[in-house]
Amino acid sequence: MQETGVRVAVLGCGTVGTEVVRLLTTTADDLAARAGAPLRLVGIAVRDLDAERDPVVPRELLTTDAAGLVARADLVVELIGGIEPARSLVLAALGSGASVVTGNKALLASYGPELHAAAAAGDADLYYEAAVAGAVPVVYGLRESLAGDNVTAVLGIVNGTTNFILDEMATRGLSFDEALALAQERGFAEADPTADVDGHDAAAKAAILASLAFHTRVGVDDVPVTGIRSVTADDMREARENGYVIKLLAVARRDGERGISVRVHPALLPVGHPLAAVRGAYNAVVVEAEAAGRLMFYGQGAGGAPTASAVLGDVVAAAAHEVHGGRAPRESAYAERPLLGPADVVARTQVQLRLADRPGTLAAVADVYGRHTVSIESVRQHRLAEGQSWIAIVSHEASEAALAATVDDLATLESVHEVLSVMRVEGV
Amino acid sequence: MQETGVRVAVLGCGTVGTEVVRLLTTTADDLAARAGAPLRLVGIAVRDLDAERDPVVPRELLTTDAAGLVARADLVVELIGGIEPARSLVLAALGSGASVVTGNKALLASYGPELHAAAAAGDADLYYEAAVAGAVPVVYGLRESLAGDNVTAVLGIVNGTTNFILDEMATRGLSFDEALALAQERGFAEADPTADVDGHDAAAKAAILASLAFHTRVGVDDVPVTGIRSVTADDMREARENGYVIKLLAVARRDGERGISVRVHPALLPVGHPLAAVRGAYNAVVVEAEAAGRLMFYGQGAGGAPTASAVLGDVVAAAAHEVHGGRAPRESAYAERPLLGPADVVARTQVQLRLADRPGTLAAVADVYGRHTVSIESVRQHRLAEGQSWIAIVSHEASEAALAATVDDLATLESVHEVLSVMRVEGV
Repeated sequence: MQETGVRVAVLGCGTVGTEVVRLLTTTADDLAARAGAPLRLVGIAVRDLDAERDPVVPRELLTTDAAGLVARADLVVELIGGIEPARSLVLAALGSGASVVTGNKALLASYGPELHAAAAAGDADLYYEAAVAGAVPVVYGLRESLAGDNVTAVLGIVNGTTNFILDEMATRGLSFDEALALAQERGFAEADPTADVDGHDAAAKAAILASLAFHTRVGVDDVPVTGIRSVTADDMREARENGYVIKLLAVARRDGERGISVRVHPALLPVGHPLAAVRGAYNAVVVEAEAAGRLMFYGQGAGGAPTASAVLGDVVAAAAHEVHGGRAPRESAYAERPLLGPADVVARTQVQLRLADRPGTLAAVADVYGRHTVSIESVRQHRLAEGQSWIAIVSHEASEAALAATVDDLATLESVHEVLSVMRVEGV
Repeated sequence: MQETGVRVAVLGCGTVGTEVVRLLTTTADDLAARAGAPLRLVGIAVRDLDAERDPVVPRELLTTDAAGLVARADLVVELIGGIEPARSLVLAALGSGASVVTGNKALLASYGPELHAAAAAGDADLYYEAAVAGAVPVVYGLRESLAGDNVTAVLGIVNGTTNFILDEMATRGLSFDEALALAQERGFAEADPTADVDGHDAAAKAAILASLAFHTRVGVDDVPVTGIRSVTADDMREARENGYVIKLLAVARRDGERGISVRVHPALLPVGHPLAAVRGAYNAVVVEAEAAGRLMFYGQGAGGAPTASAVLGDVVAAAAHEVHGGRAPRESAYAERPLLGPADVVARTQVQLRLADRPGTLAAVADVYGRHTVSIESVRQHRLAEGQSWIAIVSHEASEAALAATVDDLATLESVHEVLSVMRVEGV
């Protein structure tokens, strides 16, 4: 640290970066009092010096030389996103002993262990509250508050875009395509919505949450993902009529000492579940721990100001360490819990089928479940036009492998005209 | 720190202490991996060596010499409660450089600055997550996660006993006395329920939350308190019919740069407010901050295991500091915001009156409001027996002083037979 304070570099000046710069400049006295020294913004790395910017951004601090900026900072705020050049810059910062605060979920979910190792080797902090669920302090919660407890499950709504789309489908009866178009119009979804609607963004966050919750390395490639493209307005209506909502969930579970599973998928959730009431662009994460029981963290999951709040909380913590000593918790991966496969992970599903409407079809369907030793919790059936009927079967808990094999076999039944949907049931 | 690990002393072995001992012994390997060194339980201070105890408590570690135990510990967990001997023991620990983890809200709310000063002088940590809302990590949230933001309001349900009582009144139509008796029968209320039902417990927590939220010293004596004894089954029914619930709230607000206010009182809360759905012994705290917007922290507010989870999270943090260096955040009271008085604090109230049922009475009532420049948002009125009517008046925002003067004057009106109740309206 320089005598003149903690030298802070901001990499990236988009929506979040601009808000970070705003807070660093407009609340400088508060931040200095809390960190124990002034936070001195020494530069802002951007791609285009001439782009239009919010007047709060001091143009004289803009630079296109990100690497040069990193070299003269005590604390680097990485808000570029994506893997490169973010990864190289973060590693350079940590290697030189500068602490890093990042909101880069993709980088953490793919290169977390490498970054943590670099932080330890450089005796620097690595903070990333903003990488998961915006302003919601669930990284702190798992990494610090729950350090004395054993987490058994994490269920989260961690992607505001898909939550907004599902909400609009549920409340206004829109199709997926209509709701996506609305989300894009309102700025809640990007022109290329793949990362959000196909669940990859949520999967990166799920990997980070699971790593923290279970003290085990989990990467984004360890997370099987199903997005929300196949969710229909009919699914929504049907869910509502039966006391459920449909949410895209990140689910991480520990099965005793056997191992852990991490999944992202749309799921039927009972309307009374705390996550069922999470609307629009809000995020929420439910954590279940052996001693604490059920906790919930709730707040705005995205947007410039909320994300900047999370970034600045980390900046103050890292800056206080520069001033007073101490370090952020290191990577905690000692537990090395195995990732369970489909034969070992239990789940419940609802399967919707279009069937021939004639005697014996239900018996044939039930027989398939029985052969895979999947027991059935409930069956709802109604007649469609032209000699066909619709049926929804909710299972009890069974292995993912048995549930998948059941669906494969159902599809081969002569009386089954179509497997309309297969969806997880959670939170019961 | 000794080479053999961090020496942990537990003071008090009631419900929470027993669960802390259970976690320290049954999850010792996990805790050691997370803290970076074994946590070695060196003694448990109790009043009665011969009392019956859970088998998890190692009897050979029991001692009645709390001061002697403190002298041979690196980390002291204070779970005695109350002021003395807790205060002297905590000061002795901090003075000797041992870190302290406490769940003692009364001690913190009355002697917080003294304890923080002792921690700083002794270069020791002072942690107290368990002092507010059990397992709900709102102390972490305010002290660390939100260190980069400016909090404008904190609204919390922080007392499970009163929340249980109000819930039973609301859902089962019980009177306060009946619901209190039920809470005592179920172990949710103590034989002497004063601290809970009169709001003193919530006031201590409100003082702690406000101190953290506003970086300003707030003591329990700075918190005007109204408990729930005067809430009636009629109030509950009336609230429900009008789309409200009644909750005991801790409310801390910042009015721009003018100052802050901290209050505990029962309040009407719209059913759609996130706190309205908090049931039974659960706690929840809503924090509103300039950048983060609205956050909510939710979980079990009391009970041995949840509180022990909060304690152990702090123990791991403090132990990691013993091992790796670094310290918990110090007291942050730099802002020194003034506490606003009744002339400056704005509020909304609902006043219920029993009136003479004759022309002109409503005009007289409205005139009193007008004279105090309190504007009326809504009036509901219905006829009672014997020439009387009932009226409920909800105000817009006005100063507490003006609202109180209005009620004083209403009581003197010849047409007002009785002021039935005056209650805050929050969360609108």
